[in-house]
Amino acid sequence: MSKLTFDITMSLDGFVAGPNPTLEEPLGEGGERLHEWLVDLASWRKTHGLEGGATNPDSEILEESVARNGAILMGRRMFSSGAGPWEDDPKADGWWGENPPFHTPVFVLTQHAREPVEKQGGTTYVFVTDGIEAALEEARAAAGGKDVAIDGGASVVQEYLRAGLVDEFQVHVAPLFLGGGVRLFEALGGDLPALKVTRMVESPAVTHLRYEVEK
Amino acid sequence: MSKLTFDITMSLDGFVAGPNPTLEEPLGEGGERLHEWLVDLASWRKTHGLEGGATNPDSEILEESVARNGAILMGRRMFSSGAGPWEDDPKADGWWGENPPFHTPVFVLTQHAREPVEKQGGTTYVFVTDGIEAALEEARAAAGGKDVAIDGGASVVQEYLRAGLVDEFQVHVAPLFLGGGVRLFEALGGDLPALKVTRMVESPAVTHLRYEVEK
Repeated sequence: MSKLTFDITMSLDGFVAGPNPTLEEPLGEGGERLHEWLVDLASWRKTHGLEGGATNPDSEILEESVARNGAILMGRRMFSSGAGPWEDDPKADGWWGENPPFHTPVFVLTQHAREPVEKQGGTTYVFVTDGIEAALEEARAAAGGKDVAIDGGASVVQEYLRAGLVDEFQVHVAPLFLGGGVRLFEALGGDLPALKVTRMVESPAVTHLRYEVEK
Repeated sequence: MSKLTFDITMSLDGFVAGPNPTLEEPLGEGGERLHEWLVDLASWRKTHGLEGGATNPDSEILEESVARNGAILMGRRMFSSGAGPWEDDPKADGWWGENPPFHTPVFVLTQHAREPVEKQGGTTYVFVTDGIEAALEEARAAAGGKDVAIDGGASVVQEYLRAGLVDEFQVHVAPLFLGGGVRLFEALGGDLPALKVTRMVESPAVTHLRYEVEK
């Protein structure tokens, strides 16, 4: 059965982006440090069309997640940093260029309707204006039996958690403090899901904690 | 060399106490759930004068911390939930009765001077009114070469982190959301310490993450 998951890197103080994001620094001040564990991995490089890189447990964990996912859900703000009409958005085609690292359909939650945009390498951006449940339904249909992953941002993860729709998730805890920015886990609502740890993998670069949401 | 450390249980969403603490529920709503992993452990029971209990990696980790600590630092609010003059404080002798589980000197940070209070089993409460550095100095002198541990609360941990005085710490991540309450890591200031993961131990009940603060 196709699961709804997310895989997100969080600082030890709970942030998934630093303070004061800009178009030049979309992850905020210091936010890029969250992803230092990723960029040299063979599996990360492969999704970005690059060869080589480190093969280690971190790389295997990323590879495993990538292999499981048949479709991606993403908030508009993560997709482009924008919020208003698409014609005013300098990053209207997303942050990831002509051959994005997703290689699956990506369902972007937005208030502003738009035709799908097909990129190279299997990535199609589909814009969904009728809410998180409709987006999940479309993503599930597109995932061909594989899982659907919420890529972010934090507020979209929180919406799906509050709605009780998340089945499983993995938090990659980076050994650093950001001191401010966007918290992954807040505004979770009054009906908090119960969790079960299902795996933990350690590396000097990051700690991978996987949880199942008890239903 | 005697280190300054702390060992604190945190929910996955970053809280060390739940919302709305009261005298009946000093850890706030749901806060007691943070310590579920502790109360059946042989090492926890031993510090509380009880026999039996589970011997497992969780118990060993607690035992190791207890063995390392020669003195404890604690905020007034953690000590008694109070803030004003001691004569108005219904918990002026702390939460832990006549034979507290510390078995070392405990240095309580307070605005209100008071003579030390000796309890059974090696615990003496010493009240320090001249700030965190003076308290640390006194605690170091009392620790006899062993480490000094900050027991809490969060704001005291944050003060010592901001002052660059913490050498090492362990966060026990409980697999649950509290949804609100007191965050362990916030208000860390602008000069954020760099961290190195030094150990990770997994159990179904809790994840133990140990960090060294790079100096």
